[in-house]
Amino acid sequence: MNKLQYDEEKILLTRLENLLEIFKENEIRISLAESCTGGYISHMITNIPGASEILDRGVVTYSNQSKVDLLSIDSALIEKFGAVSEVVAKQMAEAVRRISQAEIGIGVTGIAGPTGGTLLKPVGTVFIAISFKGRLTSMKFVFRTTRIGFKKKVLESVISMLEEIVETI
Amino acid sequence: MNKLQYDEEKILLTRLENLLEIFKENEIRISLAESCTGGYISHMITNIPGASEILDRGVVTYSNQSKVDLLSIDSALIEKFGAVSEVVAKQMAEAVRRISQAEIGIGVTGIAGPTGGTLLKPVGTVFIAISFKGRLTSMKFVFRTTRIGFKKKVLESVISMLEEIVETI
Repeated sequence: MNKLQYDEEKILLTRLENLLEIFKENEIRISLAESCTGGYISHMITNIPGASEILDRGVVTYSNQSKVDLLSIDSALIEKFGAVSEVVAKQMAEAVRRISQAEIGIGVTGIAGPTGGTLLKPVGTVFIAISFKGRLTSMKFVFRTTRIGFKKKVLESVISMLEEIVETI
Repeated sequence: MNKLQYDEEKILLTRLENLLEIFKENEIRISLAESCTGGYISHMITNIPGASEILDRGVVTYSNQSKVDLLSIDSALIEKFGAVSEVVAKQMAEAVRRISQAEIGIGVTGIAGPTGGTLLKPVGTVFIAISFKGRLTSMKFVFRTTRIGFKKKVLESVISMLEEIVETI
């Protein structure tokens, strides 16, 4: 991580702090299901004092089997659409919210690289899904950068999606 | 994170890379159950390309209920000894290894602070347990520093414990 990336991370942390403040006021708890970000989102949230009031749990479902075991993702869906797909991201978000009885569930699945890309899903592809109040929002991005750069871009997108959601509270 | 902490993190990453290389050669997979480190260990491991061959899954069991749900930790044990205890760290390590069928299971539970400390378990207290080949090793530390400084110290201790384990392979 260079100086620029370090400054970027500080900005992300401030935005997260603001979100956590709003969630705290509204008694909203979060649960995370991360694949390609490997715990980075959970790590950044838990850098903030008082995070335990907001974060109920996170799962880092790196292997396909862990997605089945921890989130009851239908393995036929993984077979059909691939672990990196909108439908799996949505199931991850919905499952982790339901299991934890949190208000918000976040699901992230993608290809951090440098290997694992395909023609249709190149390295950097990521699907982010958020489950909140019966609504399931999802977005697709392609961030072609380093592994840590990729994680930061995904976190930034998650923060932007959450900032849109708090507008509706 | 300041310049010194950044340099420290780079050293930790290099030590992790060396460990992952040895685990890869020996077909050893890892699963993580983190509480107070909030996904940081999982995040650091997944910064290394090829981590998916080693890391099966991680769980960030921040709430007590998540420890019960995801790891089947006996809630009576949490009641009796507290979530931050040697016995719970050991159960976390053993449970996540068994559930994932990985070779190594790591359990971490502690108090990152700034609040949550008691006279017997001050802020900075952490229990780390590692399950490997039928052996369950555990250590207790007290790291009184910032939240991110605390996470780094815990990761450093986990790395040292894993380095001792690979000597026995």
